[in-house]
Amino acid sequence: MSASPSEFDLIARLRRRVAARADVVLGIGDDAAILRLPPGRDLVVAMDTLNAGVHFPEDTAPADLGWKALAVNLSDLAAMAATPAWCTLSLSLPAADAAWLDGFLDGFLDLAMRHEVALVGGDTTRGPLSVCVTAHGLVAPRGALSRAAARAGDDVWITGTLGDAAGALRQWRTGEPIDPALRMRLDRPTPRVAAGRALAGIAHACIDVSDGLLADLAHVCRASRVGARVDVDALPASVALRAAFEGDARRALQAAGGDDYELCFTAPKTARLAIEAAMLDCDVPATRVGAITDDDGRIAVVTSDGAAWTPPHGGYVHFAA
Amino acid sequence: MSASPSEFDLIARLRRRVAARADVVLGIGDDAAILRLPPGRDLVVAMDTLNAGVHFPEDTAPADLGWKALAVNLSDLAAMAATPAWCTLSLSLPAADAAWLDGFLDGFLDLAMRHEVALVGGDTTRGPLSVCVTAHGLVAPRGALSRAAARAGDDVWITGTLGDAAGALRQWRTGEPIDPALRMRLDRPTPRVAAGRALAGIAHACIDVSDGLLADLAHVCRASRVGARVDVDALPASVALRAAFEGDARRALQAAGGDDYELCFTAPKTARLAIEAAMLDCDVPATRVGAITDDDGRIAVVTSDGAAWTPPHGGYVHFAA
Repeated sequence: MSASPSEFDLIARLRRRVAARADVVLGIGDDAAILRLPPGRDLVVAMDTLNAGVHFPEDTAPADLGWKALAVNLSDLAAMAATPAWCTLSLSLPAADAAWLDGFLDGFLDLAMRHEVALVGGDTTRGPLSVCVTAHGLVAPRGALSRAAARAGDDVWITGTLGDAAGALRQWRTGEPIDPALRMRLDRPTPRVAAGRALAGIAHACIDVSDGLLADLAHVCRASRVGARVDVDALPASVALRAAFEGDARRALQAAGGDDYELCFTAPKTARLAIEAAMLDCDVPATRVGAITDDDGRIAVVTSDGAAWTPPHGGYVHFAA
Repeated sequence: MSASPSEFDLIARLRRRVAARADVVLGIGDDAAILRLPPGRDLVVAMDTLNAGVHFPEDTAPADLGWKALAVNLSDLAAMAATPAWCTLSLSLPAADAAWLDGFLDGFLDLAMRHEVALVGGDTTRGPLSVCVTAHGLVAPRGALSRAAARAGDDVWITGTLGDAAGALRQWRTGEPIDPALRMRLDRPTPRVAAGRALAGIAHACIDVSDGLLADLAHVCRASRVGARVDVDALPASVALRAAFEGDARRALQAAGGDDYELCFTAPKTARLAIEAAMLDCDVPATRVGAITDDDGRIAVVTSDGAAWTPPHGGYVHFAA
């Protein structure tokens, strides 16, 4: 951990609030952290950055930003069926601001504690507001899910509901009042860690929905050299989304809106009962929304009456794009 | 790894150029990387960010920036006596620019290959130019050096020479022509990886000099609850620095200038011969520059005639501070 002199106070603040884990041999305060993996576990590493004005509005509440910066990384670990363990945080701030940092840590450490993740290092620097997190998880050898394991004939499943985060962004852009339930999904996404772990050994391929379902499913299809058919009217929607949007507007938010951080996974038809039991166990709803095809690279989207449906755009558009 | 659609090309470019390592179970291209540690090794993690206009001038050559962004992280691993293994890279760019990325990777991957470090993941996002790297290394249990192990009576050592990087910055600020040898030290610092590893089991405490010798030695003293005496005239200087600066100007650059990424370490007097042999082995010069005292928290700086010397400022000042 390095810092300019004015940043030492921030680091000291941060250090006082960090939880311990027995496998952290050396945490914040030296040139690097030292971590001890349990025998027979592989290391899983994800790294994602959120930039002000690109990934979030400048005036996002610091606690929401702290939560989300960790959540998007834990979501990547969830998609690999990994168990989160440690993280590092690099925070660029226009000025040292202890109140802002306290708020940020409220959100960041709230989520970290829920998943027993220890913050073990990183740095604070001066610069335009930006948050970079590296999350470390553990997985048994060959126990991870990947994007490349989908097979023709698999069901395509989605956890939770889709479109809420994009719905909140849409309302924000058009100047409407933002529905609090939608806003919560945008600001405080739930990384599906337990669901991801429960799917290991049952599901074939898995990805988290950050860029939008169709864009992320396209990643799976490309990596697995398969195609997919998605029933846009089968996509699960929250009560709040149904109340705020209908018809093609809602379909577009669900199929192409990003930032939901649900898991999209594929599994053989024979696994349906096992999946329903596993999802019930971790209290996460999961819905079948389509199938993997051998139509390499092509995703067909249809409505409930079987007609082809074309999304207004093909993928996620960042906040300020 | 996540990205907006326009960034997929950059990631594909990057992926084609990355070297393989047998312990990378899954590299770039999924939600997270999977890495296999050898049995009986602890994981060492360092994370450092470089922001344009703060840590480097906006017009820094992309290859130099790529080199330096990795070098400062490998330097942190070196200070822990760790062997570098893998890294992740989060790159924020104002616009997708393939030529810039190619240049950046020239420098980044050049240094990565020299240390057999595999780039295994990360992300590219749109935003103000910023480079965040997380470096992962390996160390035997209890084999790491730390800041907290200095003991009164230890010698204080420094590898290589001090002040070159700060000298180049000084010339840049005053509008003088920048000496190429000094500039090289600023743009392409050498992480002292072999020296760090060679010091394991011999040295007591170790830190890399990023904020300036006195500031970084103060970290060691604080963590070890000791003090130090430094002979400012014993600080090793390069031929180029001696030619460009003299007297107190040179002393200040050497004692308080940052960005040299040499190792400052402490070791018992009885280890002098072992240290000289170890440093000879890895072809890195090392110089004794002072001693650890029991004067908790106080660093006394003296000239060769024993007079007290006060630096013009106490630590590192970032590029644009």
